[in-house]
Amino acid sequence: MNSKKILITGGLGFIGSSLARRLVGLGHEVTLVDSLIPLYGGNLFNVDDIKDSVRINVSDVRDPHSFPRLLEGQDWMFNLAGQTSHLDSMTDPFTDLDINAKAQLSILESCRKINPKVRIVFASTRQIYGKPQYLPVDENHPLIPVDVNGINKLAGEHYHLLYHRVYGLKTVVLRLTNTYGPGMRVKDARQTFLGIWIKNLVEGKPLQIFGDGLQLRDFNFVDDVVDAMLNAINSELAVGKIYNLGGPERIGLKELAETMVSVFGTGKCELIPFPPDRKAIDIGDYYSDFSRITNDLGWRPSVTLKDGLGKSLSYYKQHLGKYL
Amino acid sequence: MNSKKILITGGLGFIGSSLARRLVGLGHEVTLVDSLIPLYGGNLFNVDDIKDSVRINVSDVRDPHSFPRLLEGQDWMFNLAGQTSHLDSMTDPFTDLDINAKAQLSILESCRKINPKVRIVFASTRQIYGKPQYLPVDENHPLIPVDVNGINKLAGEHYHLLYHRVYGLKTVVLRLTNTYGPGMRVKDARQTFLGIWIKNLVEGKPLQIFGDGLQLRDFNFVDDVVDAMLNAINSELAVGKIYNLGGPERIGLKELAETMVSVFGTGKCELIPFPPDRKAIDIGDYYSDFSRITNDLGWRPSVTLKDGLGKSLSYYKQHLGKYL
Repeated sequence: MNSKKILITGGLGFIGSSLARRLVGLGHEVTLVDSLIPLYGGNLFNVDDIKDSVRINVSDVRDPHSFPRLLEGQDWMFNLAGQTSHLDSMTDPFTDLDINAKAQLSILESCRKINPKVRIVFASTRQIYGKPQYLPVDENHPLIPVDVNGINKLAGEHYHLLYHRVYGLKTVVLRLTNTYGPGMRVKDARQTFLGIWIKNLVEGKPLQIFGDGLQLRDFNFVDDVVDAMLNAINSELAVGKIYNLGGPERIGLKELAETMVSVFGTGKCELIPFPPDRKAIDIGDYYSDFSRITNDLGWRPSVTLKDGLGKSLSYYKQHLGKYL
Repeated sequence: MNSKKILITGGLGFIGSSLARRLVGLGHEVTLVDSLIPLYGGNLFNVDDIKDSVRINVSDVRDPHSFPRLLEGQDWMFNLAGQTSHLDSMTDPFTDLDINAKAQLSILESCRKINPKVRIVFASTRQIYGKPQYLPVDENHPLIPVDVNGINKLAGEHYHLLYHRVYGLKTVVLRLTNTYGPGMRVKDARQTFLGIWIKNLVEGKPLQIFGDGLQLRDFNFVDDVVDAMLNAINSELAVGKIYNLGGPERIGLKELAETMVSVFGTGKCELIPFPPDRKAIDIGDYYSDFSRITNDLGWRPSVTLKDGLGKSLSYYKQHLGKYL
């Protein structure tokens, strides 16, 4: 493979940094742009091992001066910058709008003006489907987001597809499900309950499960998501398309917590009532049909939940302090 | 009917002012808020005949200080403020985002904090469907907007439904098709080709039709849209629902232009090639299935296209100067 010039927005975040590590290993020239906004996912420790092999640019993708400069001459862009907390989007909807909708428009405007040939993968989310009307959820499922975050991410996704149709930008949309692995935020439950469970396990605290814990979910280990992104960015067939990611193992949250305890070797779980602000935006069971990306791009996850959880837990056993 | 306190955002615009006239006639206390942004639909002449019977407040709904004051104590709000030009949304996507998404969030945040009991009708648009995948288009049709305006209006619609589901706000969404009548913008083709056709007819210029003029559309005379809004705001059944408006007469654009010439008594039409910026966001044929609102609320349009065009043309024959 020829060496490519690659930009990753949100590049110091969980998925962005994992992707960067892979791309550096493949010999590419990688630039990471990240605003390092506190409480978001950006963390310099995520790239500690590759910091001399990547270019790190701390700036906001909404900056109309710096971003076009960073975009110039890039072959590929992985557009992963975003506000990902569902709860924060309800308490501060304007910031969520600004980052998940306005910033995306701003990025795409820069692309069409400065670098219309750049290939783009946009990280969208299963959140835009809302409460499943049927399972597994495929890409044709109605889009009825249950929180402001879902609505704004949906707008961001639409912009990407529109700029493909109208301006010919080579965009691909991936709708991620719950992604986990080394580098994820574990400080609080802002992004996912799985993060706080990892932290609590390592700190010897109980894992709290809302409700009866029977809600089903699917998960992707971050390395599998990185695979999907590489498949997508390289494919002509994928351009202008939307693909679900998803995991073959569907598991209830209570069973997941118990699996984590068993993999970690110690710990305990407790069921607690749903906090009202969580209940209002809860979606019940969710798992996705990812057959479209399997058929088109040959992608399927290869890391089992048990293996992925094992890797994640041993990472945080060693490095938890860097994520608090 | 008891007298209600009613707020209309975009109240000096085409539909807002027609609605205000009706509400004043019914004995309600009406406040109009409008930013009078140049090039948008707000026009003080629209309320010249009722200006002593309504309260007019020139301000921006995004103003965090004035808007909550205006909202206080209102029984009903018709939320019609918006940027409606598809073309402008492509050349200046950020302004469109600001008005059609951010302002809507801001209005809804004010509602839930200041006046959570207010009943709300939100004026959405058929534009959010994009290019029809089947005809007539019902409310379950996929939503694939073909321009930035459609994406942002869709976000605005989602916010309204979300704030109903999460906070219990009594919102109803109406998806308007092409609305025409006295008070519409006719200065240019920013909002609808029908406006510029009216102007050209009155000024003795030819009506220009893009392409072959066979694209089908449906239309609503503004009085029928006002009827629908009154039906919607008063109905418990409508709360949290989405309703298409639409017209029973489906007509090709060339035939429409010829009908206008015939109703006006003089004038001519010419076919010209599609301008590229228009072609990129054209949707082909569109007409809607409005059986849901007929079944639920008993609404159906009562003004024929011929009558409506006659009323519109005689209005602009007399008042064109106030709209240039």
